[in-house]
This record gives sequence, C-alpha cells and structure tokens, in this order.
Amino acid sequence: MNGQETDARVDKARYRALTRPAGAHFIDVLDQRALPHMVKTHRIADVEAAATAIREMIVRGAPLIGAVGAYGLALALDADPSDEALARAHALLDATRPTAVNLRWALDRVRNRVARVAPGMRADAAWREADSIHAEDVSINLALGRHGLALLRDVARDRDRPVNVMTHCNAGALATCGFGTATAPIFLAHDQGLPVHVWVSETRPRMQGASLTAWEMAQRDIPHTLIVDSASGLLMRRGDVDLVIVGADRVACNGDVCNKIGTYDKALAAADNRVPFYVALPSPTIDWNTPSGDTIPIEARSSDEVLEVRGRGEAGHSIDVAIAGDSTRALNFAFDVTPARLVTGYVTERGLAKNAGQLRELFSERARGED
Amino acid sequence: MNGQETDARVDKARYRALTRPAGAHFIDVLDQRALPHMVKTHRIADVEAAATAIREMIVRGAPLIGAVGAYGLALALDADPSDEALARAHALLDATRPTAVNLRWALDRVRNRVARVAPGMRADAAWREADSIHAEDVSINLALGRHGLALLRDVARDRDRPVNVMTHCNAGALATCGFGTATAPIFLAHDQGLPVHVWVSETRPRMQGASLTAWEMAQRDIPHTLIVDSASGLLMRRGDVDLVIVGADRVACNGDVCNKIGTYDKALAAADNRVPFYVALPSPTIDWNTPSGDTIPIEARSSDEVLEVRGRGEAGHSIDVAIAGDSTRALNFAFDVTPARLVTGYVTERGLAKNAGQLRELFSERARGED
Repeated sequence: MNGQETDARVDKARYRALTRPAGAHFIDVLDQRALPHMVKTHRIADVEAAATAIREMIVRGAPLIGAVGAYGLALALDADPSDEALARAHALLDATRPTAVNLRWALDRVRNRVARVAPGMRADAAWREADSIHAEDVSINLALGRHGLALLRDVARDRDRPVNVMTHCNAGALATCGFGTATAPIFLAHDQGLPVHVWVSETRPRMQGASLTAWEMAQRDIPHTLIVDSASGLLMRRGDVDLVIVGADRVACNGDVCNKIGTYDKALAAADNRVPFYVALPSPTIDWNTPSGDTIPIEARSSDEVLEVRGRGEAGHSIDVAIAGDSTRALNFAFDVTPARLVTGYVTERGLAKNAGQLRELFSERARGED
Repeated sequence: MNGQETDARVDKARYRALTRPAGAHFIDVLDQRALPHMVKTHRIADVEAAATAIREMIVRGAPLIGAVGAYGLALALDADPSDEALARAHALLDATRPTAVNLRWALDRVRNRVARVAPGMRADAAWREADSIHAEDVSINLALGRHGLALLRDVARDRDRPVNVMTHCNAGALATCGFGTATAPIFLAHDQGLPVHVWVSETRPRMQGASLTAWEMAQRDIPHTLIVDSASGLLMRRGDVDLVIVGADRVACNGDVCNKIGTYDKALAAADNRVPFYVALPSPTIDWNTPSGDTIPIEARSSDEVLEVRGRGEAGHSIDVAIAGDSTRALNFAFDVTPARLVTGYVTERGLAKNAGQLRELFSERARGED
C-alpha cells in the first residue's frame, strides 16, 4: 500500500504537519504554536532545529515527534556521520520530551539502521529510514481510521442523528504524518457521508483542542462544538456523547494509557455513563517494556502554561494574558494515566483490541520482542 | 450569636464581598470581574443596578446573589412600595440567574415579610430582612466552617504533612456574606495553626478558581497551587489530595448537587481514588421542592466565555484573547449535577450529613415545609 496515494485520496484538506520535498535535506513543518490564528511553515535544516521544534512544541503529537526525531538524526548525520555525532544527536533528541514512546522508538530505529552502515552511507540510510517511518505512519493512520470507522457505523445504525464523538487534545493530522489517529475515523466518516458531530475539549493548559483539533474540523467543514474540559461529564450524563476517541502518548503492556492531562477524567465520566471509550493508537505507541502506566514518566511543564493563556488579541497578534494574581503558583503535569479497566477498546492499524491481551495477540511478534 | 462579631474574630483578611454601611440606602460590593488584578468597589443604589450586578456577574456565588437580591428588593421598595413594584422587582431579580436556589429563597423571604406590611413601612422592613439574611449568612459560614474543620482535623491526625484540600470554582468569602462555604473550614484551620495546602482548580471558562479562590488564599497567606481543571484526576491518583470540598448552587431533596461545571468530574475522580468528597452548603441552598438533580435548570451562558479567555495583558489591562478560529462555535453550560451517590458528606451549619436522609433529619422542619 502506498501511504501517500491513499492519503491523498481520502484527505481533502491540504495542510500537512510535516513534508519533505523529494530529495530535500530539510523538512518543513507547520508551526503549531501559531495555529489557529496563522498558518506558518517552519523549516528544519539541522539537528538542533529539530530538537528545538520538539522541545518548544512547534511540533507535537507522539507520532509526529517520532518522525521529526528520525529526520533530526538524518540531519545530524548529514553534518557528521561519526559514531560520536550519532550518539550525541540521539541523546539530544531523546531528551526533548520524556513521555511519548514513539520518539525513542523512531530514534532507536534509525540508529539501529545506520549503525551497521559505513559512515559515508549513513546519512542516506537515515533519510530513507525516516522516509519509511513517515510513510508508514500515513498508512497506519488510514488503516486505523478504517477500523475506527466501523465503530462509528455501528453507533450510527442505532441513531437518526449525527454520531456525537468526543475527543480530547489533538490526535489529528497535526499530531501525525497522515490524517491522525483519533481523528482518522471521524475524517473517513465525514468523507463517506456518515454524519458526525465532534465535541472538542479545549485541553488546558495549551488549548490544543481549541487551537488545533477545532481548526482541523473547520478545515474539513466537519460540524464541531468547543467545550471546556470539565463539561465532558455533564454532556455524557445528558446523553449527548455517543463515544469518546482519544489518542495516546504511550500505552503500557497492561493496557494503561498515558495521554494528555484530562484523559483519565473523561474515561471516568464515560464509564459512569456507559459511553464507550476508545483509544486510537499506532503500534509504535505501545511500550512493550513498560509493565503498567504507573511507571511512565509524566512530564511536568512550565507553570507559566497554567498561569497564562495564549490567544489572539484584538489587533490580531498572539498575546499571553495572566489569569491569576502574582503570588499564586501553579503545577503543570502534561499527561495522566487512564487505567486499562476504563478503556472499551484500542483501535490499532491491525484492528480493534478489547483489552491488553488482545493487543498483545494483534502484535504478538513485537510483544515477544521479535520486531 | 452575632454573626458580624464572630466573623471579625476569625477572619483576618479585610475584604468583604458585600457591605451595607449602617443606615445606608445602598450596598457596596467588590467587582469580582476585576479580581485578581484590581480591587474595585461597585456601588448598587437601585434595583436595576442590583439585577445588573447579578446578571453580569459583578457578584456571583449562590449565597451572595441571594443577599444582593434581597437588598435589591429593598432598593425597589425605597423607590416605590406598591404591590406592583414589588412584583416587578421580584420578577426582575429572579430572572437574572436560573440555577442557584438561594436567590429565589431570599427574594421570597423578603417579599413574604413585606407583603403583610403597609406600603409606607415596606422599605424599612425589607432593609431589615435583607440585613438579617446577610447576618445569618455570616453566622452560617462560621458554623459550617467549624463542622468542616472537624473533618480536616480528622485527616490531619493521620498525616505528618499539611492537609491537601482540593476545591473548585469559588465557594469562598467572595461567594458569600461571610468567609465562605467550602473555604470556611480551610480559613479556620489556617487561623488555628493547622497546616493546609489548597489545590485550586482554575474553573474554566470564567476562571473563578484562578482569579477568586487563589486570590483569597493569597490574601490570607494560605499555601495553594493552581491547576487546570482536568488535572484533578491525576493528582488524586498520585495520592496528592486528602479531601475535596466544593460549594453548591442547589442541592435537591435526594442529595444531588448542582454546582459549577466540572464538579461532577471531580466527584468521579474522588470516588475512583477513595478521596472523600464533601459539599459545603448553607441550608438555603437546599431546594426541598426539587426531588432530584435531573430537574434543576442548567444555565447556558454565552459561548464567548469559552471562545475567549480574559486575563491581564502586559500593560496591566484586562484583555480578552481568542483561543479558537473564527469558524468554531462553543457550548457553555455553567453547572453540572453530581449524583448523591458520589458525595461523602454534606457540611451544613447544623453539622455533617452523610446522605440525603440525614440532611432531611438535620433540617426536618424545613423539609416538611414548616419554615
């Protein structure tokens, strides 16, 4: 399957989180800090720029930072193909974000690929491997979307109104190389004429729901409504949500899901109201070496993200406004862990797994460490 | 018990949400829209100004809007003591906010008090009744605080660190005439040397946690940390929360609690982590005529509150910034309903009730409609 082609067929919107013009020794990414108010491309032409783009969240989303990390290694090897440079670049990129496992997975994959190659051939090998990771992610998104679409069709059968899907943060095209994980079934449904309506949870503190997911829905003319994060319980209690689909930054062996802060709260509300709660994940998000969610490192980010909110001011510029008094401090954990018992199913590129056991069966060669 | 005196004794901070200088035919309130960046007093000298202050949330908080409503009737009767004017003012004030029951309770109480009085005496009677409501609320806060303090002391016995209390929105001095409902036990504990630390949930969309509760804690030098609303689940899972105390806008006969949006989500997280979840409520918040939370009207406010965030810009002025693109719409329910099964206890001025049955016993004369 050619990922690029299938993607172009189903994906009407033209934006791409990451592009590498054929043969280019740079990548272009959308500057996600500027969205939704400005569409701005940011060029990454060396490994430091790749590390900065991940660290400062010019790019974010577990699959996307994996791909950017892979290209970052290729850029490093362009400049210096030595073992030392490879190790240094790997360490630099690996340290940018601690929680998502895709980044480490992609870095290890490129490193393992090039380590056996003569230094003079390494950069080319790294670019090819990064391109493969990129293309595979596009294919994974599509496969995952098709399996997720079946779930939406099941719900639609019992409804004479649009299927109400709730999502959190951004597990969209902007979080991946293709058309998203949690959003892939939604985009496919919309493209195929199945009426959907999306509850977009704003996702404080960085508002990725408001600024990215809502923007993606608007790009595709998909009906959507923005809500504050804590409105999810009420909406589920009112019967206004048919299912929840979120992405993941890392899934442990036992099925515990580490994802954007607030995912756990939504899973609890879903369980209390018998709303199915699905996690959409490409297999590189599964950490076969982590037995449970309790040992996943949770990134604590700057408290300024809580104390200030960034938005567009009247003049059209991006402005930070302070929401608390000067003597108030804040704590800012970026992720939480949803226990496996609250997850209805895992939507993967190989189909739906209803629990951690089925997930291991779907990816048995990887669970055994053979891949 | 003289509410004013006891309040002065325990309450070190000098701000008051509502004051009526002796004999004055106006009231002064703090403009809560200006906090925490500016402390500004707003004078209310006629019934229209009272209605505007409630509607536009210059004042908010169930007990406080009850008192402002009562004074609003007195102001109306100052201008025109006729039956028609009384009915008109009652209707005007009653329509300002639909969810909190204290407002209707206070309006009915003043109306019933003055209806039997000759028009020439009505204004005076209304001012006296409003003063009583005001003074009683101060006393209720203190009594409720003492009962809540016992709960904090119980927790403190098992801990060699400060008691970690989580609260949501603002059920503080700014929501009442005294020193708050949910905050009363916290303020008492701090005044009596019992170490407490407060997790302040920012409370999107209007940020009453960040702008009001955090400000109140800072005024009293009480250790506190601001968090985004959806971080509560993670913090409880980590064991960082000893108990949750929230206020209420209306409590139904069966113990269901209508309170700020996001309260239900916190109650679910508390239940999942065996963290006690308490609701602090003055008895006028109980609606003996509403059998369950499902029939409480939930106020839907302007979607602009979701689409824009207000804060202090660099120049020190209050600014609204847009967090989503122009084609995104929002929904803004201001309250949710927490089912009684998730509530560990109700802290009232007459003590702790563990369930709706005990609540009815504590207030049996009112439950039977004799008061």
